[in-house]
Amino acid sequence: MMTLLKLCLLFSLLSLALSHDATFNSHLLPRPLILEDIDTQLKEHEEEINLQCTSWRFAAETNNLIPWKTIPRECAGYVKDYVTGRGYKLEMERVSNEAGVYAKTVLLSGDDKDAWIFDIDETLLSNLPYYADHGYGLEIFDPVEFDKWVEKAVAPAIEPSLKFYEEVLNLGFKVFLLTGRSERHRSVTVENLINAGFRDWDKLILRACDDHGKLATVYKSEKRSEMVKDGYRIRGNSGDQWSDLLGFAMSDRSFKLPNPMYYIP
Amino acid sequence: MMTLLKLCLLFSLLSLALSHDATFNSHLLPRPLILEDIDTQLKEHEEEINLQCTSWRFAAETNNLIPWKTIPRECAGYVKDYVTGRGYKLEMERVSNEAGVYAKTVLLSGDDKDAWIFDIDETLLSNLPYYADHGYGLEIFDPVEFDKWVEKAVAPAIEPSLKFYEEVLNLGFKVFLLTGRSERHRSVTVENLINAGFRDWDKLILRACDDHGKLATVYKSEKRSEMVKDGYRIRGNSGDQWSDLLGFAMSDRSFKLPNPMYYIP
Repeated sequence: MMTLLKLCLLFSLLSLALSHDATFNSHLLPRPLILEDIDTQLKEHEEEINLQCTSWRFAAETNNLIPWKTIPRECAGYVKDYVTGRGYKLEMERVSNEAGVYAKTVLLSGDDKDAWIFDIDETLLSNLPYYADHGYGLEIFDPVEFDKWVEKAVAPAIEPSLKFYEEVLNLGFKVFLLTGRSERHRSVTVENLINAGFRDWDKLILRACDDHGKLATVYKSEKRSEMVKDGYRIRGNSGDQWSDLLGFAMSDRSFKLPNPMYYIP
Repeated sequence: MMTLLKLCLLFSLLSLALSHDATFNSHLLPRPLILEDIDTQLKEHEEEINLQCTSWRFAAETNNLIPWKTIPRECAGYVKDYVTGRGYKLEMERVSNEAGVYAKTVLLSGDDKDAWIFDIDETLLSNLPYYADHGYGLEIFDPVEFDKWVEKAVAPAIEPSLKFYEEVLNLGFKVFLLTGRSERHRSVTVENLINAGFRDWDKLILRACDDHGKLATVYKSEKRSEMVKDGYRIRGNSGDQWSDLLGFAMSDRSFKLPNPMYYIP
């Protein structure tokens, strides 16, 4: 839609430019001014898209949006540029750095009951190769296609998360992996995590039969409640969805990784 | 610091440009190429600052940062441009729009116990005129100076918030204003709210003597707990700080307004 609009704008300005062409003196004016106008207008259009999509991204990342199924069509290019560019990397690094600073300030009790929870998808493992083939969130989520991808067990590690994961282990936290993936994907998930460099987690929790159909917020809160009942203190929690972090039995401190591609309630 | 760096870069490139000047043929080259290089390098520098400060802002808005007292020095221009430009306005509008869509979906029980909580500063009222005189968050917060500003009672309404506030009233919610301002500022706060167009709140809650010294998260959670004990259902909560929204007795749904200028724990 927006690309169409852009093209229309370009053509209408171009025809305007051509109709005036004869009056230009190419020696005095190295470039026809009207082309600069097109440049300016396209640039303004680009800036407007950038502004609107940044505003949308902030609303998404701060959990202000009404549940959404796909990214806004006009933000397709913006989201692609962001997740494949330096912005996404930088933000990933910053989350892990800040979480690292916090983790070091936590006084562990020495009873092996201080826990850190990690989500898996878009938190430890990146599904960017899958989303690259599916419009970076522009297509409605296809569970069948996504399962095929999961079963390949080739999702790469998010590097700053892997580094932070190691720090958490070294500091002596118990590590719980709490994922919305199904129990039937346990072995491929373990395989993928190990191949990506993750190790020594205390427990990997996946959705059992009776967890399917629950909202992620509820399922994850219930699992955290069980940890608390088992005497664990949840000192930190890292996830790319607010449904990883909110609800009940919440962590002392949560860290929200960026994810402008999809939303899980 | 960054401005200094930029100036150094400019001067070093400029001297380079001047030393080569004699070799340029100004007829063939309408602009010395080296100046385009400066443009390019300054543009790249600007893009880098923009990227870094957007990443910082994302981390601030998602509550990922370790408590901070001032904005990063190199983001001074970025924050100023953002809060005085269209970005801040757009994001304010978006939060209110999304909150409005949610508010309409809430089925009110008709027993006058469905409540919406609003924070005041940077949520209903804007202190931008004050922060404009104090570096938009670059200076450490000065409670004496800020009190003088509060006592003037001239903070303007945040327009999209005022519009949403009216909607909330019209839908039939009870409105609670829960602010970190001191009880001794009750009358100036009421005066300012009314002058800015706000009306008909059910209760205005300010910090009493024994609330001072409490973290905002604790103070506000305690006040929400009292509402719940009084039989209220907290259906929505709007605030610019995570300490308005997190803790206990949390709202069904929270809306985080942008505020890149200061952080209240």
